[in-house]
Amino acid sequence: MTTQNHIYFDHAGTTPMDERVLEAMLPYFTRLFGNASSVHTVGQEARYALDAARERVAKVLNCRNREVVFTSGGTESDNAAIRGAAYALEETGRHVITAAAEHHAVLHACQMLENRGWEVTYLPVDDYGQVDPQQVANAITSETALVSIMYANNEIGTINPIPEISAAVRERAQQLSRTIVMHTDAVQAAGFLDLDVRRLGVDMMSLSGHKFYGPKGERERRSGTENVAGIIGLAVALELADGHRGEVGAHCAVLRDRIVAEVQRLVPDAILNGHPTDRLPNNVNFSFDGVEGESILLGLDLQGIAASSGSACSSGSLEPSHVLLALGQTADTARGSLRVTLGKYNTDAEVDRLLSVLTDLIDNLRQLPTLTGTGDD
Amino acid sequence: MTTQNHIYFDHAGTTPMDERVLEAMLPYFTRLFGNASSVHTVGQEARYALDAARERVAKVLNCRNREVVFTSGGTESDNAAIRGAAYALEETGRHVITAAAEHHAVLHACQMLENRGWEVTYLPVDDYGQVDPQQVANAITSETALVSIMYANNEIGTINPIPEISAAVRERAQQLSRTIVMHTDAVQAAGFLDLDVRRLGVDMMSLSGHKFYGPKGERERRSGTENVAGIIGLAVALELADGHRGEVGAHCAVLRDRIVAEVQRLVPDAILNGHPTDRLPNNVNFSFDGVEGESILLGLDLQGIAASSGSACSSGSLEPSHVLLALGQTADTARGSLRVTLGKYNTDAEVDRLLSVLTDLIDNLRQLPTLTGTGDD
Repeated sequence: MTTQNHIYFDHAGTTPMDERVLEAMLPYFTRLFGNASSVHTVGQEARYALDAARERVAKVLNCRNREVVFTSGGTESDNAAIRGAAYALEETGRHVITAAAEHHAVLHACQMLENRGWEVTYLPVDDYGQVDPQQVANAITSETALVSIMYANNEIGTINPIPEISAAVRERAQQLSRTIVMHTDAVQAAGFLDLDVRRLGVDMMSLSGHKFYGPKGERERRSGTENVAGIIGLAVALELADGHRGEVGAHCAVLRDRIVAEVQRLVPDAILNGHPTDRLPNNVNFSFDGVEGESILLGLDLQGIAASSGSACSSGSLEPSHVLLALGQTADTARGSLRVTLGKYNTDAEVDRLLSVLTDLIDNLRQLPTLTGTGDD
Repeated sequence: MTTQNHIYFDHAGTTPMDERVLEAMLPYFTRLFGNASSVHTVGQEARYALDAARERVAKVLNCRNREVVFTSGGTESDNAAIRGAAYALEETGRHVITAAAEHHAVLHACQMLENRGWEVTYLPVDDYGQVDPQQVANAITSETALVSIMYANNEIGTINPIPEISAAVRERAQQLSRTIVMHTDAVQAAGFLDLDVRRLGVDMMSLSGHKFYGPKGERERRSGTENVAGIIGLAVALELADGHRGEVGAHCAVLRDRIVAEVQRLVPDAILNGHPTDRLPNNVNFSFDGVEGESILLGLDLQGIAASSGSACSSGSLEPSHVLLALGQTADTARGSLRVTLGKYNTDAEVDRLLSVLTDLIDNLRQLPTLTGTGDD
């Protein structure tokens, strides 16, 4: 996938819109532009289209139509789910369980609850970034109202055993005769993993259309005029992503495995972050000792390659990734990370180019004197 | 303007997107799809585009770039402005002034503040729906932190004298040595009236892109990925709307004046709601005694004409409009209202058709026995 002559390897950050998604949205910008709250036929056409989109989304997720809530994206979904469930169950207990390697949207919502008197348990993750279902079960108390564990990590691609975690939560909830809501942030999982909420056993799941070739910013939840075209686009993108995830995943996995093998062969002391097999088929994440992640990104960008040092939210800052720290890395090592996330339009030739540029670049960077701290030495 | 063979007269509800707006948005769905938070060139292109859009909006509004905040639309803007200003100035006083005929988004935000201990003054409006600057000045106390008065009414099109109201607020604020924020909901005014915030003298102003041929749902305010295409679209729509408001306003005013004159000539006892001259050039609002607004809408819709009984938010309910009640109408009269809002694509022939259908329809409806309350008689 090239954009403006750049090779794009940052699909965990955002994806281009699939042309079929745009095609489906276009009529709702112009010919079918009605306000879904209006009683006349023009408005009701928009309402029918919204209802149909909701039904298509519900079918992919295997949930009821009315359980689908359109928001402006992943951050708002995580917030609404966590704060909504916590407030709704406040009378029954004010304890929430999450994990140290969750997305900032989840962690910030939990910290907000902590500031207002909730108790939050931040479970550790193992060296690969996984959460242990038994540890979740052990953390549940007679005050627990909500468990929020991500499906797949946005930085390192590690996949959590959500069905096992959900089952452990359900079992403890029954023992304690409590309602405990199980939420999962599935923003990175969509398009690669099974999204059937019954098989996953989750009560709430967050998704974001622009991570699976859909539009940015859909929104319907609050009062006001619905973004009809955005919601139609989201539904079509979700159907396409889920319908083709086998082939897209296989395509990405081949490229991913080549990158991992070649980097490990060509770059001494490259550390693969995340789980070796339980990871998203499109995620590669390496730490390179003695090199700044920002320098790698800049070097790649100058050669026309777009990648990331981790989550887009923390890029631009030199703070080490909280995810890599949760894996037990030192701050220094965590600062030298590179995330390459593949998409369905990436090619073998683009991977060749990445490997050639990256190996030279790391080599050159390692021969430079350390840049950080220069002013102090 | 026809859509699916319907003649569209509900531009205060929503507008179709101008093709030039869509044209400007398209590249940001596909070729230039980057996440504006990413550090690489692909992301930075999106960031530059957002910054340029912000600058274009600021230029139309005559404000500083950083004063422009993109939200998901008018409702969120009203909410954020009113709650934001009230909370920010909480320490200095907890009194807010608004008016009885404001949009529900403003009234709901004010009611929320009331529930949390703020005092809210709901000023009356005159028979045309206008707020008196002197009454605003008189209502200001040593506790007043915020005044929110709409620029043009969404139901009846009446225009408030915002420069005079702002000046009165400023004068009282100086006398009392207080900060009093002046907010105006300009959602219906955009595309027809001057939006220069300095000439208007307002500190905050709410706008909504889909009311002036822009996209629905833009959003940037909260953390999360910006809807780049939506924001670009908003900027282009605002430039077009403001740049052509003279000719679009003149076009609509000719059609409006014909409708008003013909309805008054042909339909006995038709009451024109709102100000006879200080009104939006695209707004016609009549009450027809002894007829339900919903029946008029249904009858028009069956003949392929989309209109409204007032604000889209209250349609579908048989509650009389709070705006018409604020003008002093009885609930019965207020229930028989019809709003026709014109747009730049409406034609003379469409107005001919409306007049012919509407006059027959009112005549027929008035010959029917009253439908409401039938079950009880």
